[in-house]
Amino acid sequence: MLHRRCRRSVGVLIPPIGTLAWLRNYVASRLAAASEASMPGRMHSTGSKAMGLFTKDIKSMEDLFLHTLQDIYYAENQIVKALPKMIDKSTNRELAAGLRNHVRETETQVTRLQQVFERLGQEPKGVDCPAIDGLIKEADEVAGEVDDKKVLDAAIIGSAQAVEHYEISRYGTLIAWAEELGHDNVVSLLNANLKEEKAADKKLNMLAEGGVNKRASGRTAAKRNTRSSSRTKQAAARATSSKRTGKARRRTRAAR
Amino acid sequence: MLHRRCRRSVGVLIPPIGTLAWLRNYVASRLAAASEASMPGRMHSTGSKAMGLFTKDIKSMEDLFLHTLQDIYYAENQIVKALPKMIDKSTNRELAAGLRNHVRETETQVTRLQQVFERLGQEPKGVDCPAIDGLIKEADEVAGEVDDKKVLDAAIIGSAQAVEHYEISRYGTLIAWAEELGHDNVVSLLNANLKEEKAADKKLNMLAEGGVNKRASGRTAAKRNTRSSSRTKQAAARATSSKRTGKARRRTRAAR
Repeated sequence: MLHRRCRRSVGVLIPPIGTLAWLRNYVASRLAAASEASMPGRMHSTGSKAMGLFTKDIKSMEDLFLHTLQDIYYAENQIVKALPKMIDKSTNRELAAGLRNHVRETETQVTRLQQVFERLGQEPKGVDCPAIDGLIKEADEVAGEVDDKKVLDAAIIGSAQAVEHYEISRYGTLIAWAEELGHDNVVSLLNANLKEEKAADKKLNMLAEGGVNKRASGRTAAKRNTRSSSRTKQAAARATSSKRTGKARRRTRAAR
Repeated sequence: MLHRRCRRSVGVLIPPIGTLAWLRNYVASRLAAASEASMPGRMHSTGSKAMGLFTKDIKSMEDLFLHTLQDIYYAENQIVKALPKMIDKSTNRELAAGLRNHVRETETQVTRLQQVFERLGQEPKGVDCPAIDGLIKEADEVAGEVDDKKVLDAAIIGSAQAVEHYEISRYGTLIAWAEELGHDNVVSLLNANLKEEKAADKKLNMLAEGGVNKRASGRTAAKRNTRSSSRTKQAAARATSSKRTGKARRRTRAAR
């Protein structure tokens, strides 16, 4: 009884020596702690919450819309925290400047999302988003593995574009759902965020193809010109055999 | 010693009653199991491996390219496993049929990636991909929360599009890097996968806007027509004030 009273009153476990009860409780508490540590985004300090495990909380399309809004709100907040680490690791000036600019944009996007919540009569709140946690974890892990600074710049662009594409997909879905539900008063705010994500993705593309990838692969301008020339010949050969031309390739990349 | 022998021979823990050693080991083993369970993709049975934690394995752009190839190879294999669960939960026939078709496409994509590895003189191998693990986990969690079957169809489309966008981003990056590195012999294979992902995303978009979202929001055709009419008026009003028109909205959605 002493043990149970102690737990209730001070919230810690006092071992009743000579019994196995304490160790059983200790196992349970350490398992819970390990589980929590392995899911850092599960309960979040900036107002996010985990979904109920045994109840089905999403009863309607309105609920699904709100849930996805909370998901992207959590994601944007995590991105604001993750971007400075990417900036610190970037050696390319333009890349660092572009990412710094995107931190400011993302902060504005968070504010726009708060306005969306407000217009819907809801309190801004984040909800667990394992997708963005995974994307950021992957970016961190890959960056930690790269031994060459120029290669790291290319890796950072790739990771940042994966994040941008997640956001593009989420905002696209949210806009379609908002329109379907008649929430016309929030569409322009969501669309402003979508446009910025698309522009950021395009800017990253330009940086990658404008020199970062070339420097990462250690190629000189001379080597590049030689290869471009041979590639043009290959493209011409492909064009005559009705395959994908260099022009089509550029189109594909531009459409990303 | 009995305890240690038992563990070695049959792989289970026998408690030596009267000592704390068994419970200490039990705590350690359960913590290890909990940690493993929370990271199901950490070590994967189909040939994937976790990255080294203390060495920087990516020394060059070639290494980064190969690593990202292993990342998408792991991702595609996980998607092949995840799609049947999505199909089981879909009530919309067209959606289920579309996802079934995408399972076959994804299997072909895995084969194409194996050809890419082969052409590069590498063995097909997956590497940890926390991003796809997170995307699939999020899809599962949201699906588990939805109480209405029609809303669930809309949720499944949203989750599937997030996965498609991850793949679109990864293939776009891989194609750019392959071209930069002069791996022209793998570009067409990667591009075939990219094209299918983009087509799948577009198809999901059509399903969502072609009826799934409408049914999920419980709106009848009559209600939809009334709203469309009022929306057209709003769009016209916006057009005169030089803001985004209905046409621009359609363009934005088509560009997704």
